Amino acid sequence: MLIVQKFGGSSVADTAKLRRVAGIIADAKNAGNDVIVVLSAQGDTTDDLIAKAHEISPEPTRRDLDMLMVTGEQISISLCAMALQEMGVPAISLLGWQVRLRTSSDYGSARIRSLDTERIRQELDQGKVVLVAGFQGVNRRGDMTTLGRGGSDTTAVAIAAKMHADLCQIYTDVEGVYTADPRLVPTAKKLKEITYDEMLELASMGAQVLHNRSVELAKRYGVPMEVLSSYVRKPGTIVKEVTKGMEETKISGIARDDKIARIALVGLKDEPGIAYKVFRVLAREKINVDLILQSIGRGNTKDISFTIPKSELEHAGKALSAEQDAIGFEHINVTDKICKLSVVGAGMINRPGVASLMFEALAAAQVNIHMISTSEIKISVLIDQEAADVAMRAVHKKFFEE
Amino acid sequence: MLIVQKFGGSSVADTAKLRRVAGIIADAKNAGNDVIVVLSAQGDTTDDLIAKAHEISPEPTRRDLDMLMVTGEQISISLCAMALQEMGVPAISLLGWQVRLRTSSDYGSARIRSLDTERIRQELDQGKVVLVAGFQGVNRRGDMTTLGRGGSDTTAVAIAAKMHADLCQIYTDVEGVYTADPRLVPTAKKLKEITYDEMLELASMGAQVLHNRSVELAKRYGVPMEVLSSYVRKPGTIVKEVTKGMEETKISGIARDDKIARIALVGLKDEPGIAYKVFRVLAREKINVDLILQSIGRGNTKDISFTIPKSELEHAGKALSAEQDAIGFEHINVTDKICKLSVVGAGMINRPGVASLMFEALAAAQVNIHMISTSEIKISVLIDQEAADVAMRAVHKKFFEE
Repeated sequence: MLIVQKFGGSSVADTAKLRRVAGIIADAKNAGNDVIVVLSAQGDTTDDLIAKAHEISPEPTRRDLDMLMVTGEQISISLCAMALQEMGVPAISLLGWQVRLRTSSDYGSARIRSLDTERIRQELDQGKVVLVAGFQGVNRRGDMTTLGRGGSDTTAVAIAAKMHADLCQIYTDVEGVYTADPRLVPTAKKLKEITYDEMLELASMGAQVLHNRSVELAKRYGVPMEVLSSYVRKPGTIVKEVTKGMEETKISGIARDDKIARIALVGLKDEPGIAYKVFRVLAREKINVDLILQSIGRGNTKDISFTIPKSELEHAGKALSAEQDAIGFEHINVTDKICKLSVVGAGMINRPGVASLMFEALAAAQVNIHMISTSEIKISVLIDQEAADVAMRAVHKKFFEE
Repeated sequence: MLIVQKFGGSSVADTAKLRRVAGIIADAKNAGNDVIVVLSAQGDTTDDLIAKAHEISPEPTRRDLDMLMVTGEQISISLCAMALQEMGVPAISLLGWQVRLRTSSDYGSARIRSLDTERIRQELDQGKVVLVAGFQGVNRRGDMTTLGRGGSDTTAVAIAAKMHADLCQIYTDVEGVYTADPRLVPTAKKLKEITYDEMLELASMGAQVLHNRSVELAKRYGVPMEVLSSYVRKPGTIVKEVTKGMEETKISGIARDDKIARIALVGLKDEPGIAYKVFRVLAREKINVDLILQSIGRGNTKDISFTIPKSELEHAGKALSAEQDAIGFEHINVTDKICKLSVVGAGMINRPGVASLMFEALAAAQVNIHMISTSEIKISVLIDQEAADVAMRAVHKKFFEE
């Protein structure tokens, strides 16, 4: 088998942890696999480098910041190569530019364009474990770039895709994907399998096990992923296109997102084009809108409510208030004391009963629902944040414990 | 003017120091010069990285160690680029491989083979200060190499040579080259100029201002160098091919080397080929021999004494003792309580009076001379280490204070 393994920063934070990671890699190699490894920077290295840059300049130039940051992953792979060789496992470390990982020129958030697998193939053919620095690439100019959030996961999936790997393992500090966050719902169960789409919904709900970007890439190229722990040697959760039992509409999990806020515009004119006027302002300000609820007009006015990331609340409020006359609303209500709860499961659209089961659980727990949104594989409700813990356990119990 | 400036690790050790260095660079740029800057890793960074590697492996592989170490210079140049831009000076940082600094494959001690100046030229033409990572290059394979001792100085001189720079400034923590080490001889004077050859002799004598390797390269390509302080804004010492006043046999300085040891082989047979037998052993063990003294034969035996680096004393002693029968000597005497004192000056060979002046000074100070060696630009004597301070001041006084 050809396996790509990715280890995050906390998994390689110090010498002892690096040795444990090297042990996991050595086991995979000694079991007869070809192994490619992608590493993040050790522990807080990236943050420390950014802090150093900010000591020099409040707004360091992005090109130089990338030039600085890529050293973190370079340190990880060279140390890990030493650790493997110390265990008698032949290994070689390669930087982004050495595997011709070409990206766009957006320093700090570059997109992968291409990757030359020749060098990786050569080294694998010589029996070596190939360690590739995550998070980094080079642009057309030959300058160093970084991939931004989820960069190392994305590097791993991109390499797995190009090399036609059998599996891309993402090692983290959790044992896999759960039916709900185990810190919030102690009875949560680890899933054996989950589809890309379900994983995308869960990730965007704040499950934070995998970054959407890497899952999207895996889905596009059909790369099977496995989320597993670098601390416990157990099978994790496999993420792939079709999972067993999908015909029976399996519910994969309950996700919760607290990082949202709701804005309500009250007393808008009930006339065509009014929604466009509102959301044009938000689009101009590059603010992502999630749930949208438009009331049925009463007389000649109506209301529009929508959710946005909590971090954008102030920005959005200001932008809309500045356009109050142009848009034409009476007043604006904002709150960030809300929470979005979602039930995720492939093929849900064929089982309308799922929604009613969810609403039944919430009603029994006396939780009031503000907004509802559905998609092919998800039902989300907006509820008060103070009700979220109770609601989550009630819904989880309904779907997984009864 | 096109100037190459090189700053060592202690000059860029922290944010405050980096800012001062950026100030020096900005001044050179604002005075209308084109400026290329070569930086070493900050402070103890390289040592810290090596210590990290040794935590993982007692003998880390050289390729991986180089991959690890080159991050140090990368951090320096990216931070310095930010500091310059923060001052409004356009700047760009470039790694060894980005300026195609090709080297041999000897990891840890690679030799520079070639350098492509196109990118540097482009960036200079755009009015930017170009910051190049010192100490690093890439081999034919595209793998990272380091240049070993004096690497950053050598990078600076190589770039100055290829770019036909008018001056290569080496910033250090001293103000220039002195007639003697100012810590040992308080009356030592800073030299305005010195020839490459004199500098080479002084450097090999342990003056430690410039590495021989960079001076040799500068001499080969005729690159004028300047040694100056990054703390005090004063002209330093210019190192070039011919200095003013060379016709009059100027003495440049007094150097002292304490890092040597002496081995004496007593009771060798007085027959042809005996010296070859001795030095063949040392050559095989790759031990550098400096001064050699062979006694005139008494009866059918003679003695051979020679000096070697102190660090090689044990190794050399063992190697020779193992061959005692093959070489044929009665016994071996070793000591490391000795010191080599040298007077350096271009054109000295034409002024035999220099040697007698030196011996006069030593005799007056009651210093016993064990061995004497002369070259075109140097007279060296081997003396007891305990007499070295007195001897150095006496000789310095004779040549520079009378």
